[in-house]
Amino acid sequence: MPNISRPRIHLGPDSDSALAKGIEQGGGILVPLADADAVVWTRGPATFPDRLPDAVRWVQLPSAGVEPWISAGIIDETRVWTSAAGAYARNVAEHGVLLLLAGVRVLAEQVRATSWRKTDFDPRVGTLYGSTVAIVGCGGIGRAMIPLLTGFGAQALAVTRSGAPVAGAAETVAADRTTEIWSRADHFVLAAPATPDTAHLVDTDALARMKSTAWIVNVARGSLIDTDALVRALEDGSIGGAALDVTEPEPLPAGHPLWTLPNAIVTPHVANPATGLTAVLADHVAANVERFATGQPLLATIDIRRGY
Amino acid sequence: MPNISRPRIHLGPDSDSALAKGIEQGGGILVPLADADAVVWTRGPATFPDRLPDAVRWVQLPSAGVEPWISAGIIDETRVWTSAAGAYARNVAEHGVLLLLAGVRVLAEQVRATSWRKTDFDPRVGTLYGSTVAIVGCGGIGRAMIPLLTGFGAQALAVTRSGAPVAGAAETVAADRTTEIWSRADHFVLAAPATPDTAHLVDTDALARMKSTAWIVNVARGSLIDTDALVRALEDGSIGGAALDVTEPEPLPAGHPLWTLPNAIVTPHVANPATGLTAVLADHVAANVERFATGQPLLATIDIRRGY
Repeated sequence: MPNISRPRIHLGPDSDSALAKGIEQGGGILVPLADADAVVWTRGPATFPDRLPDAVRWVQLPSAGVEPWISAGIIDETRVWTSAAGAYARNVAEHGVLLLLAGVRVLAEQVRATSWRKTDFDPRVGTLYGSTVAIVGCGGIGRAMIPLLTGFGAQALAVTRSGAPVAGAAETVAADRTTEIWSRADHFVLAAPATPDTAHLVDTDALARMKSTAWIVNVARGSLIDTDALVRALEDGSIGGAALDVTEPEPLPAGHPLWTLPNAIVTPHVANPATGLTAVLADHVAANVERFATGQPLLATIDIRRGY
Repeated sequence: MPNISRPRIHLGPDSDSALAKGIEQGGGILVPLADADAVVWTRGPATFPDRLPDAVRWVQLPSAGVEPWISAGIIDETRVWTSAAGAYARNVAEHGVLLLLAGVRVLAEQVRATSWRKTDFDPRVGTLYGSTVAIVGCGGIGRAMIPLLTGFGAQALAVTRSGAPVAGAAETVAADRTTEIWSRADHFVLAAPATPDTAHLVDTDALARMKSTAWIVNVARGSLIDTDALVRALEDGSIGGAALDVTEPEPLPAGHPLWTLPNAIVTPHVANPATGLTAVLADHVAANVERFATGQPLLATIDIRRGY
């Protein structure tokens, strides 16, 4: 490709080598902000430039969730903004399946045990085989989980905004029928974006409808669950348990009951760990730079009205 | 099938309804021991009859591991003996994948944490994606694990007695070359039978060859690992960790260092929990009764010289 047609990309504020390589692999060249057609940003909104040059037609953000960017009023409608949604899906899906298996097989209690409590645990170890797992929000993460879950002999019940069939799911239900699924599925994986529509989606009513053996996995955002209602359900044993990589509030304060309830598992938002994060993001950036260079639609474009 | 050709099966010492149904589904009829062509046994060797009627041509044992039966001298060569090997494979494979994921993603330490230790855990959460997992012993359990592991983007390195290629494995290595794999694979799942050849297969030398990030999962028998050598490796941090559903000694005594080492996970031999055990075994028994009735080779025949 002649130099003149290669998109001029500003990488900042960090000069990350993995991302620099991704930009070059996608056909871009690295330039200072003042000369840029596009920006690949490596940090949060706090240090983002107050004003971008008008020539910047696209901004790639480094995170999958973009609520802080929207609430900070940074995302405008004069250019295209893309998130990292999908880039980290595989990693988050792996963590989600681990959390669900750990729940179903009472692993947290077993890890905390300091003696051979076989007669206690043996009757309580379940299996994913033959179970129905509802995946609430079937974007990249949810879709990446489906083949993993079906590999264990579970069937996936997908919940999406439109209800259009999701490949690999036994059934797809539209989000406005979410209430139906609480009593139907055996377990739940929350993988929906944080929006006003999904705030406290799992509330007292939803929890009351769930089976007493149901586990809830949250790898999305803490706001999807009413934490106080969840703690009551866990204390009452009215559901099987909850395994949360995200919480509300986050970080979860020391002393919170979720740290010590036997049927709760908390991991501190590490489903997609920062280790090697930019290496994973680099593939996504390379794909988007190539699309930008050739005028194709970009991956993970942000719609501020939709909220992700 | 006319009654006269139906195999006469004695079910004992427990009259388990799931197994009785399996026998009938396989075409057998339930009879007292004195009238039996075959025996389906529901317990361990301690209460097994001292002498079986000569007419008994086949005995189905309820466990996958049969060393106690062999060492008690019960298994003879005058009739066919079958174990439950393979029947429980799916369930054990699920537990094995959970233990490996839990190891790779430092779940045990996260479960034990009582505060938001994100900066501690984040850099240490790994992934199965792109890793090479050696499966030492590729019978029913090992073969059931391969598609699960490849689903997560790992590749399987199978170790079998013969070295004949195992379907789905990237490579199969013969057992006499096991020494080679300790330094080659990223992680290890032990799924081999307990025999003199596999006793302390994982010893000081094997541990010393492993990568410092390697996790060892044992869902087979405790005797495959030299426990003292393992504890030293875990204390030194010379391997990533060990997740054990079986131990030596077993049960693991209270106060043993494996209960509290941060890089150890112990579950008390519950990979194939007794909950619904006979329901799982019933399918295996039905298949074997049908094979017995029609003169086909039985599943999971025991060879006392081989030891399983």
